[in-house]
Amino acid sequence: MTSPPSPAPDLPSPADVVAASARVADHARRTPLLTSPVLDERVGGTVLVKPECLQIGGAFKFRGALNMLAQLEPAARARGVVAWSSGNHAQGVAAAARLLGMRATIVIPRDAPAIKVQNTRRLGAEVVLYDRYTEDREAIGLAIARARGATVVPPYDHPHIMAGQGTVALEMIEQNPHGSLDALLVPCGGGGLTAGCALALAGHSPGTRLYAVEPAGFDDTRRSLSSGRREIVSGDAHTICDALMAPSPGELTFAINRHALAGAFSVTDEQVFEAMAFAWRELKLVVEPGGAVALAALLSGQLDCRGQVIGVVLTGGNVDPALFAGMLARASA
Amino acid sequence: MTSPPSPAPDLPSPADVVAASARVADHARRTPLLTSPVLDERVGGTVLVKPECLQIGGAFKFRGALNMLAQLEPAARARGVVAWSSGNHAQGVAAAARLLGMRATIVIPRDAPAIKVQNTRRLGAEVVLYDRYTEDREAIGLAIARARGATVVPPYDHPHIMAGQGTVALEMIEQNPHGSLDALLVPCGGGGLTAGCALALAGHSPGTRLYAVEPAGFDDTRRSLSSGRREIVSGDAHTICDALMAPSPGELTFAINRHALAGAFSVTDEQVFEAMAFAWRELKLVVEPGGAVALAALLSGQLDCRGQVIGVVLTGGNVDPALFAGMLARASA
Repeated sequence: MTSPPSPAPDLPSPADVVAASARVADHARRTPLLTSPVLDERVGGTVLVKPECLQIGGAFKFRGALNMLAQLEPAARARGVVAWSSGNHAQGVAAAARLLGMRATIVIPRDAPAIKVQNTRRLGAEVVLYDRYTEDREAIGLAIARARGATVVPPYDHPHIMAGQGTVALEMIEQNPHGSLDALLVPCGGGGLTAGCALALAGHSPGTRLYAVEPAGFDDTRRSLSSGRREIVSGDAHTICDALMAPSPGELTFAINRHALAGAFSVTDEQVFEAMAFAWRELKLVVEPGGAVALAALLSGQLDCRGQVIGVVLTGGNVDPALFAGMLARASA
Repeated sequence: MTSPPSPAPDLPSPADVVAASARVADHARRTPLLTSPVLDERVGGTVLVKPECLQIGGAFKFRGALNMLAQLEPAARARGVVAWSSGNHAQGVAAAARLLGMRATIVIPRDAPAIKVQNTRRLGAEVVLYDRYTEDREAIGLAIARARGATVVPPYDHPHIMAGQGTVALEMIEQNPHGSLDALLVPCGGGGLTAGCALALAGHSPGTRLYAVEPAGFDDTRRSLSSGRREIVSGDAHTICDALMAPSPGELTFAINRHALAGAFSVTDEQVFEAMAFAWRELKLVVEPGGAVALAALLSGQLDCRGQVIGVVLTGGNVDPALFAGMLARASA
């Protein structure tokens, strides 16, 4: 059972997700809910797949960014926005800003997948590159924001961002032909999508168990759930999941997730590759490593799905061709 | 302007596509209609993409197969079905037969993509392999059909198959948020999908121009449109489009297509690879070579799309990983 999140003045509510849904409905893509007999057979249940790789910008991030930017006052809109991101949030903010006619500056690590940098530029944003190991992206972003009076768009720890991401789960609930949803598995970095989905479930499907899935070595949410406080991982583990390298849960996201989550799973690179290959072969979808972790948890048998209806979110599909080709070579070896 | 096909007793009508739609609605996936700002910018128009790679069996073929099998009498159902196919029709027939609890035997060339053979077997069909260059698949299939009293399910030249495939265009017309559709481009092998779409357009969107797209060397429909009679290509050209290697248009399909088509385009392997890479990068979809030819025609500028609303069908996504990885390597080189 999902417990409804504790009320707190700064936290978004289930009603905020509904309001976000009305705000993004005309612009975000209503991604389909897919099924696969092969997947169902494999896990012994009914799996509903939400392919947010088909979302504008190639990831769910557009939802939260649009929900936040659409609520800025005209004066703030005129001064533009700043964001820092390993890539998908960058594209989400850039796409939302372009839609609303706003200037966007994005601070991106130099080693992010080239496709994410290119796409952000193509969406009309100014890109500022930094070194992930020696520079502080937050300091760079804040300096730009101060100089221009621009609004910072955080990747997850903001009520409007969380509420916007929660529209993913709201749509799944609406699209579900089976009525009830026993469990929902979502990829988890800083926890914004997880928290937003928690709100949607609390409001509209309180019986659904929610699980966060993280890459091995970046299982800060799993550790934080165990200890009851926000744990920080070293962040120097290797993972192919570039989108999920947040070293600790967000303050606001964890305030929701600590009460809402039924649990958390972590998956290895090997399991992620297997899930990407499965999505390629059986679903005909291009999923990036971080986007495939929830499916990886399912395929590696971490949850008993027998006889249940299980939702799984594929969060994004922005991946460099060389990594993808390498994954295919492994899969066919 | 699309002329309505001439009436003929053996040919399906627009009403048959509507009837097929009711028949397959509960079982076939209603694939979404996708858009891409990058694609729109590239061609200067509004492109509506119908990803039938997301269809059951990974290709549109399930629609026609189900429409035909569902109309068999109980006695015929009990004796099962036989089909020959380079792969996608095989999977479509196997999936439809499994759904209806029928036995299916599929004759597949030994050099078809391994994934198509595996998937056909996994769908519960018996697979009979033959040598494309020395054996006659029709003779093999007919012998099996005679021995068992089974019904032959032709890949395209049958009224029920054509009507079923036409549900692709019917859905596009219903899903189109722009109201009118100026042109529709569809991949063309034997012409079943093309003919079915022609019927749907004749009935529900008569102002839409319909174009067939074929691989270079297998441009039998293009040549037949020029000469006014069913031309046969040598069939020994090389193409990566294994799904579109029919050497001549079908008798029934061409009877419809000769009047309905506004024209036909052909594309090179290089253009197909580029379209597959585009679908991977911008649409996050896995598209097989034959499934990408209509997009390839669009991307290679064969149709002036400026200011128009253009539909394009991606017919399938069943492709071997090695070919796909090779395509990605080219794309990133």
